[in-house]
Amino acid sequence: MPQRTIVVFSGGLDSTTLLYHQRAAGDEVRALSVDYGHRHRAAELAAARAIAADLGVEHRVLDLRSLAGFFGANSLTDATVEVPDGAYSPATMALTVVPNRNMVLLAVALAWASAEGGDAVAFGAHGGAYTPYPDCRPEFAAAMHAAAMACDARPLAVLAPFVAWSKADIVRRAVALGVPLGTTWSCYAGGDIHCGRCGTCLDRRAAFAEAGVPDPTGYVT
Amino acid sequence: MPQRTIVVFSGGLDSTTLLYHQRAAGDEVRALSVDYGHRHRAAELAAARAIAADLGVEHRVLDLRSLAGFFGANSLTDATVEVPDGAYSPATMALTVVPNRNMVLLAVALAWASAEGGDAVAFGAHGGAYTPYPDCRPEFAAAMHAAAMACDARPLAVLAPFVAWSKADIVRRAVALGVPLGTTWSCYAGGDIHCGRCGTCLDRRAAFAEAGVPDPTGYVT
Repeated sequence: MPQRTIVVFSGGLDSTTLLYHQRAAGDEVRALSVDYGHRHRAAELAAARAIAADLGVEHRVLDLRSLAGFFGANSLTDATVEVPDGAYSPATMALTVVPNRNMVLLAVALAWASAEGGDAVAFGAHGGAYTPYPDCRPEFAAAMHAAAMACDARPLAVLAPFVAWSKADIVRRAVALGVPLGTTWSCYAGGDIHCGRCGTCLDRRAAFAEAGVPDPTGYVT
Repeated sequence: MPQRTIVVFSGGLDSTTLLYHQRAAGDEVRALSVDYGHRHRAAELAAARAIAADLGVEHRVLDLRSLAGFFGANSLTDATVEVPDGAYSPATMALTVVPNRNMVLLAVALAWASAEGGDAVAFGAHGGAYTPYPDCRPEFAAAMHAAAMACDARPLAVLAPFVAWSKADIVRRAVALGVPLGTTWSCYAGGDIHCGRCGTCLDRRAAFAEAGVPDPTGYVT
């Protein structure tokens, strides 16, 4: 029987590639998106819905907007905090962190797996030990896997197959898998097309350039 | 500086004693309750609010009712499933399990700690290795502690000081701490006073009897 895997799926470049990657590995995949009141939710969730529908994958969007008040000031969930322009510095990066977001997402995905016969949950963490996001590092992924093995009557798994990859590695894998990269959404600024200036847009552009892959994204600038 | 601890706090016997226990240990405590659409939420949250107000402890109630749809059929969140009467059997116990509830609660409490300077989160798991709830066992608590140490830029802790205790041990500790046991709420049936017949009421009664402590609870029968 194929592994039944729930992919934590934002509709971005990384998690869309992950959805294709687990499907190509033979998993029976389902996709979980979360609306946590983030500024770029409209474009991101629209991308997620279009990609999941195109793949014919079961997709659920969970409304966790009530969580936003539990997070401190950050540019994703607090409209009063500006999205920083330009490449990330430690200071501007801190403004984009929703505290403990990945643990919350994995906990909810594991609840779905527990309730409805899933075997594993997967998330698109990448960047290895040097990513500035603690909850994207290999030690976090390994600890969450150990917790998943103990949280339910059945052992569950946490998969993070890209955890040691760069974003350029993910772009290369996406091309090999035929991922509709132009449909994926990265920008944090909240507009209808990618702003091209926020840290996430710059990361996205740099990944395509480093991978030597034409960037299909339409940017404002 | 005292340890700043967020207690996952339902207003029940175990988590109320935990709140007093961490406070007696010198921690600066805050309390987090979650409304996850459970049948007995009205009485439970009323108890939690009264206890926290009496202690003068900051108390937040997070609305996670949107999560209920992600959990399978169980008597706590699905009004069509009857609350089983009598002592728990493996079959009736299964109906009271909200999948992965403790990981979700700990993840949210850790988000609060991460955002607002907490050092630790504590939960009232007890029963040791033989509890029927996987997410109350020592190995689950230890795995979540390891995940908490890795989830944020600062290491956070997960405390489960009662994990090897029986419920009678908790009653004895509660008496020593002066916990207002008559205000705590256990019953799953959803009435205004404890039904006295559901598995949780039977567990509560048995714990007082085993501890040799007069039970201040008013029961229907």
